[in-house]
Formats: sequence, structure tokens, C-alpha cells
Amino acid sequence: MADKADKMKARLPRGFVDRHADDIRAVKKMTDEIVKVYELYGFEPVEQPLIEYTDALGKFLPDQDRPNEGVFSFQDDDEQWLSLRYDLTAPLARFVAENFEAIPKPFRSYRSGWVFRNEKPGPGRFRQFMQFDADIVGTPGVAADAEMAMMMADTLEAVGIKRGDYVIRVNNRKVLDGVLEAIGLGGADNAGRRLTVLRAIDKLDKFGPEGVRLLLGEGRKDESGDFTKGAGLDEAGIATVLAYIETGDVAGNEGVEELKQIAALVAAAGYDDGRIKIDPSVVRGLEYYTGPVYEAELLFEVPNDKGEIVRFGSVAGGGRYDGLVSRFRGEPVPATGFSIGVSRLTSALKNLGMLDSSDVIAPVVVLVMDKDTESLGRYQQMVSSLRQAGIRAEMYLGGSGMKAQMKYADRRGAPCVVIQGGDERANGEVQIKDLIAGAKAAAAITDNTEWRESRPAQVSVKEADLVATVQGILDAQKADRG
Amino acid sequence: MADKADKMKARLPRGFVDRHADDIRAVKKMTDEIVKVYELYGFEPVEQPLIEYTDALGKFLPDQDRPNEGVFSFQDDDEQWLSLRYDLTAPLARFVAENFEAIPKPFRSYRSGWVFRNEKPGPGRFRQFMQFDADIVGTPGVAADAEMAMMMADTLEAVGIKRGDYVIRVNNRKVLDGVLEAIGLGGADNAGRRLTVLRAIDKLDKFGPEGVRLLLGEGRKDESGDFTKGAGLDEAGIATVLAYIETGDVAGNEGVEELKQIAALVAAAGYDDGRIKIDPSVVRGLEYYTGPVYEAELLFEVPNDKGEIVRFGSVAGGGRYDGLVSRFRGEPVPATGFSIGVSRLTSALKNLGMLDSSDVIAPVVVLVMDKDTESLGRYQQMVSSLRQAGIRAEMYLGGSGMKAQMKYADRRGAPCVVIQGGDERANGEVQIKDLIAGAKAAAAITDNTEWRESRPAQVSVKEADLVATVQGILDAQKADRG
Repeated sequence: MADKADKMKARLPRGFVDRHADDIRAVKKMTDEIVKVYELYGFEPVEQPLIEYTDALGKFLPDQDRPNEGVFSFQDDDEQWLSLRYDLTAPLARFVAENFEAIPKPFRSYRSGWVFRNEKPGPGRFRQFMQFDADIVGTPGVAADAEMAMMMADTLEAVGIKRGDYVIRVNNRKVLDGVLEAIGLGGADNAGRRLTVLRAIDKLDKFGPEGVRLLLGEGRKDESGDFTKGAGLDEAGIATVLAYIETGDVAGNEGVEELKQIAALVAAAGYDDGRIKIDPSVVRGLEYYTGPVYEAELLFEVPNDKGEIVRFGSVAGGGRYDGLVSRFRGEPVPATGFSIGVSRLTSALKNLGMLDSSDVIAPVVVLVMDKDTESLGRYQQMVSSLRQAGIRAEMYLGGSGMKAQMKYADRRGAPCVVIQGGDERANGEVQIKDLIAGAKAAAAITDNTEWRESRPAQVSVKEADLVATVQGILDAQKADRG
Repeated sequence: MADKADKMKARLPRGFVDRHADDIRAVKKMTDEIVKVYELYGFEPVEQPLIEYTDALGKFLPDQDRPNEGVFSFQDDDEQWLSLRYDLTAPLARFVAENFEAIPKPFRSYRSGWVFRNEKPGPGRFRQFMQFDADIVGTPGVAADAEMAMMMADTLEAVGIKRGDYVIRVNNRKVLDGVLEAIGLGGADNAGRRLTVLRAIDKLDKFGPEGVRLLLGEGRKDESGDFTKGAGLDEAGIATVLAYIETGDVAGNEGVEELKQIAALVAAAGYDDGRIKIDPSVVRGLEYYTGPVYEAELLFEVPNDKGEIVRFGSVAGGGRYDGLVSRFRGEPVPATGFSIGVSRLTSALKNLGMLDSSDVIAPVVVLVMDKDTESLGRYQQMVSSLRQAGIRAEMYLGGSGMKAQMKYADRRGAPCVVIQGGDERANGEVQIKDLIAGAKAAAAITDNTEWRESRPAQVSVKEADLVATVQGILDAQKADRG
């Protein structure tokens, strides 16, 4: 063992987090519900590995202008570059292209998993996070996009978001592209400026029309004095974009026709009651979208970091990406899909008071009063009998005395402890101490002597009655909670 | 879109695999059962990220003699080296050390997740695979090791391995260390040769005492002519090791005393009925074990790659690693834990005919006979009504005709399809075709004309009876399966 002087420092790498029991249980509960909806919609689980050839991930990294910036990469021993996936879409595109003949098409699939961004971490911005995706590959029809929007709505309701507390907004990149062409930003040379314009439109919710006007022009200074450079459009260009945002219409545009078809399909299924809306300000920040784009926004209000009350905002988004699979196939392979930000949605649900884990009861702790092997065997048997009755239980395994053991049981949140010292053993008895009732009683007691003498919520029972007595205490505690 | 000439090749990196629906569902079913056992034993879920500082992972890579060989590593922008974890134990050690004051001790925790090895892949040997670990940190007492062995046994039974089809073997590194010292292999200089001796002992099951004798001496040539270099022990050394393997005893050894205590605890809880056995040939290949080691072996026989009948073998293993957390703390932090090889255990259960997913019914497919938006809306409504009744359903979203749609439904394994063309619509009816009954009938029909005319298992019903009729077909198919 290292001595104190040269011991290593235990530290998490920047931008990564450890996950605790509450979060793990909450995410599991939530994703189990999401799976049920996706399965009902006919989707099948399919997963890709976390590592892909860097070139297969392509130049489509979200929110980045340079290829493969922001990706964790390393060279394989055959000199080929590998990268950790930055989303679940690019690996799916590789999978579909590689297994094209073997899969039924259109191909409905879903997957959840970790993705990585090699970026500067910040508050709420991590370098490893979880996404939950669903995609339909192999159909050009916007009926698929309409179905995705409806599935988004059903998913939010399944995890507990009330109707009226969310909206699925739908737009179409083709309409936006028409606008961009109209203001002279067509062609490959203008890709960078196009992105800046799209991001400006995307900020309508946040900064209002005046803020978007600044971002389309010279730029915008925020309250802290930070300056965001604008797209540098002239007045006519700015006016065209703002007019589009207001009306959503661009004459003769194929995208507008598609949106009308989506609206009709959504209406036929009854989702036009405020659940799904066509909204010309929806952009989605990814260069690879080629048609309809959609996002799920939560409408209820929460305090932000600065204590201001704001809408919770986007928890999922996606769209049609007809180019991603085609890269590999050399033939058109249309596709559409969306991604749920798992920790965003989890924190939304926690905000609504859902996903608590009060139904998870901490283990009953059997204390160790005597440390000889025979006694340990006896305590172990008590634990076994509790477990066989389906009760979470454990024997205290540390080397410490009574006081530390009680403290341990307390920290674990144990519902009760089981105690058997020499005297109890001689009588064939065990003591069971209800820690919840004990804590309640303690709150009402002000005097230390009284506390010690009252020995609240402690009972002595025959060994044979151990399981039944513990079960009775658990039932009583449950009734108290409910 | 790329044209055919310069399109990119879609390919999985070497040593990685895509996961399909059956496997994902099987693993989920199995891990859900494992979680139940661990929770019952008082363990809590805690997870670490997939990336750690390389130095925190330490020099303890299993089955490797050189530090950090076999690890995927990359440099962060602050020049620090990061690595993908190669197991779940080293990250847990970092976590415990970093959060030492905040966690209750002894600390019982579990986690499952992907781990990575930058090694040459081979048959059944992947560079990304899943482990499921449970650990108790903060107790030196072998009662913890005994409990781990018992939890292993309970876990195997919970996932469906019958008693008698498995054994948990327990040994103690201290006993082995005593033997190694007795033959002059103590000290840091002999670490490499110690490992060779341990690996030789580990092969007892596979090669028998004679094979182990060769591996302890000059080396062993297998049937294919491949030569494995031995540990180069002299005759006296070989004799000492073989005698130990036979009797398990080394006079005055602390490890032997610990094994006796474990045996007593296991017996007190009734697990000495063949479920848990002390076995001097158990080694476990990791340098970092410091005390008891244990592994779960499945005893039933399966054909191997060469068609020979062999025992299924090890599916989980672990032991006491008192040094891993101490590296960070500069004080003793004893710990013990084990790891389940998830895909090993999954394939064992599949071998036993478990984990099938025949309870997952493919979606009902509503065919698209007319492609106008109004008709699509109507088909979408049928799908919605089926889903609302809890029936997996989807509208065909491709652009193809009737024949391709039937082929699609067939590939999906759809239980039935729903058809409504112009005539049916005029009558307010739908046709429902039972594909399972249809396939059965088809098997009995030899003549093509007869097939076309019989239209097996197809019914016309009023639109309002769609859901009830489909449900009836699903119920009948279920009864047929059962």
C-alpha cells in the first residue's frame, strides 16, 4: 500500500459524473415507460457499440463547424482512427447501411445509451450523457415524421407529463432552406453563415424577435456584456427571415406542402388539440436535417440558475436526415428520428415531483453483538430468513461497536435493526428496534434521560417471530407514509 | 449524396458488435432479476463514468503484465491521459476513495456497464463487453466474502440455473501466496513468475494435474502443436504446488484459517449442500487480489467450438482486493467484490432454453392501399385505436405495393395485417388476415390455385369491430403457442 506521502489523488475527470442510487432508479423507471410506448408503436431495440471508425461518424457533429472537433478519438493498432460516438444517429446510419439487406424496411428501431462530447464542460453540460433515440429508416413519406411527433407526445404523457404541459413543435428544413436561398445564402460556400442564421432563428423563444434581429445582423450583446457575432445579413435579408418566422409561409415551397400533409395526419389522429403544432421558428441545430424537424418542449415554469422563472424548454428533438445512410449506400435511404435528452427529461420529472424512490425501502440491519464465527453464523441465518421472506436485509459487516453500527443503520435509512446479545440469545429472543418510530418519538422527547429510559419503539420477540415482527413494522411504516 | 464511386464503406470496427432485439431483451430480463437479488442483499446501485484518468485505473489490468497495455487511452486538452475503463472495480475504487466521508461503511453497491479492452479480438472475445459487479468496501472480515459467495449462488438460481447445475468455488490468495513463498517466489521481482504459476494452477480443470505439472515446469504443447512456456519450477517446487492443490493445506497459514471461517459461515446458512465449496485450485487471474477469491462455475455440459462436450465453466468471479482503494487513501480500505460476465451468463441461459422472447409479439401491420392524405389519416386512426387497446401496431410507411407490404409484415413476424381498400371502405369494413393461421394453412396446401382461392384465415369485419377482432386473433395465437 502507498503511504500518505505518495498516495494518488482520487478524482473524476472534468465533465464526468458519478451516478447515485436515486438517479439510476429514476432513469430506469422512466426509460422502462419509454420502452413500452416505443414497443407499442412497433419499434424494436437495436444497439450499436460505443466506438466507431471516425470516418463513419462523418462531418455531422452537432453544433460544430469543423469535422470531428469535439469527438474523443484514438488510433487503433492498424493506424485507423476510432472515436467514441457523439450521438446515436450516426452509428445507426452505419448499422443500417451495413445490414441493409437483412433488415425489414421501413426499419423501426430504438436504443438508449451513452454518448460523448469532447468539449469544455460547464454547469449542466457534461462530456458523457445519455440519449434515448427512435428512428424509422427507409421511407420518404412524411407520414413517418407525423408518427414520430405523435409518438413524442404519447411518450411524454407515459412518463407523467400532463397534456397541456407540453407541445410538440414541427417545422421543415426545406422551408428554411427556401428562405435561406431567397436571401442569397444557398450553396456549399455559405454553410457557415446558414448555420448562424438557423441558430439565430432558434433563439426566438429565448430572446424574442428583437434579439433574433440582432443575431441576424451585426450581433447581440447579452446582459453580462458578452457579445455574440451575428450572421451579417442586410436589412432586406433580416426582413425576409423575420417575415417568414411570423407567417411560416414561403410561396411554392415543397416543404410547406409537406407540413400541410403532416398537419392533416396529425389532425386525423386527434393530436391537433394543442399537443402537436406547426411552428416556423423550430430549427434544430444540426446540419444534417433535410426535411421535417420536430421538438418536444415542456411548457411549465421553473426557476433557472439565476432564480428567474422560465419555461422548462426542450427535452427531445429530431427530424428527417435523408443523407446519413446514403453516404454509405450511394443510393437514397430516407430516414427520420428523434432523441430524448435523458437527464433533461429526468430533471423535468423530478421538478414535477415524480420519479421519487420512496417505494425503495432500505435494508433491515442485523447488528453484530458477538464476533465469534458461531454468532456470525447465527446473525447470517436471521438475515437469510428475512431475505427469504422478500425483505431487504443485511448483517453489519464492519468491525465497529454498537454505537457505530446504529449510526450506520441510520445512514442507510434502515427501517429497523435486529439485536441479539448474550442475554437475548440465552432466552431465544431478539430485540427489534423501529428506527422510524424511534426517530419520531425522539423528536417529541426533549430530555436525554427520558430518551434513554423510554427506549422507544423497541420490542423483544422470540427468534421464531423475527420475520413476522419485522414485516409488521414495515407494514406499519408503509401505512404511515401512505 | 455521395455517388456509388466515392461512397464510404459501412463497417463495424474490429472486435465490436451490434446488438439485436433478442439479445437486448434477454440481457434486460436477466439483469432485472440480478438487481432484485442484490437489492434484497442490501446493495445500492452506484455507477461511474466510462472514462477515468489513466493513472486512476492503475497498473492492475487483468491478464496483462505491463501497465496500461490493453487499454484505450487518449490525451485530454490539458495533456492529462484519459482511458476507457477496462473493468468496473478500478473506477469503483476511485469513487469510494473520492467520496469516502460521504458514504456509509461498509459500503454495499452494485453496477452494470460496458468495459473495454484494447486487445486483439478473437472468437467470443470482444473489445467492448458488459460486466455486472457487486462490491462491499470497508470491511476486513471474511463474513463479507462468505456473503458474496452466497449471493453468487442466489443470483444464479434467480436467473434460472438449477441447484446442482452450478458450484461456487472459494479459495484464498493468502494460501497461494504461502505456497509461492515456500517455493522461493516471494518478492516484487518474482511477480511475473508468480502470475505464470497462478495461471498454471488455474488450468487444473482444463488440463488435469499432468497438464499443470508441465505448465509449472518447462511448458506444455497442446494438440495443435502450440507451445505454452512454463514457470520453470524445479521438481521440488512442482511437487509442493501439486501437493497443495491436492490437500489445500499449508501449515500455519492465515489464509487457511480464513477459509475455515468462511466454510463455517456458509454451513451455518445452509449453503454447504454443494452450492459453495472450498477449492484450492481456484486462482482468479488478477494480480490485485489479496485474500479470499471465489468463482461461479456452471456444471452442465455443452458442445464447444470443436464439437467436444465440455463443462460450461466460469460465468462470474471475484475476490478481496484490499489494495485498490488504499492506493488513493494512504490507509487500509479493505474491499471484496465480484463480476458477472453478462454475455457469458446470457449464453449459458440461452443454452438452457431460457431467455427466449416468445412473449414479445410483433406489431399488427395496417397496410396502405390508398396513399392520399385522407386515407393515410384513416389508417393512422386504426393504428391509434389498436395501440390504445395496448396492441402493438403500425401503419406500413414504405412506398411499395401490396406484395412488398405483405413481405414486410412477414419479415416483421406480424401476427396479422389489416387491409382496407376502396371497396371495403365503401362498406365501412376492414379485412384482417391472420398470418400465423395463414402460414399453417399454407403448409397444408400444395396447389397454388387452391391457395389463392382458399384465402386462409382472412375475415371481413365492420370497422367498429377492428380492435376486438384483432384481439381475438392474438388470443387464439397465444392459446396455440401455450
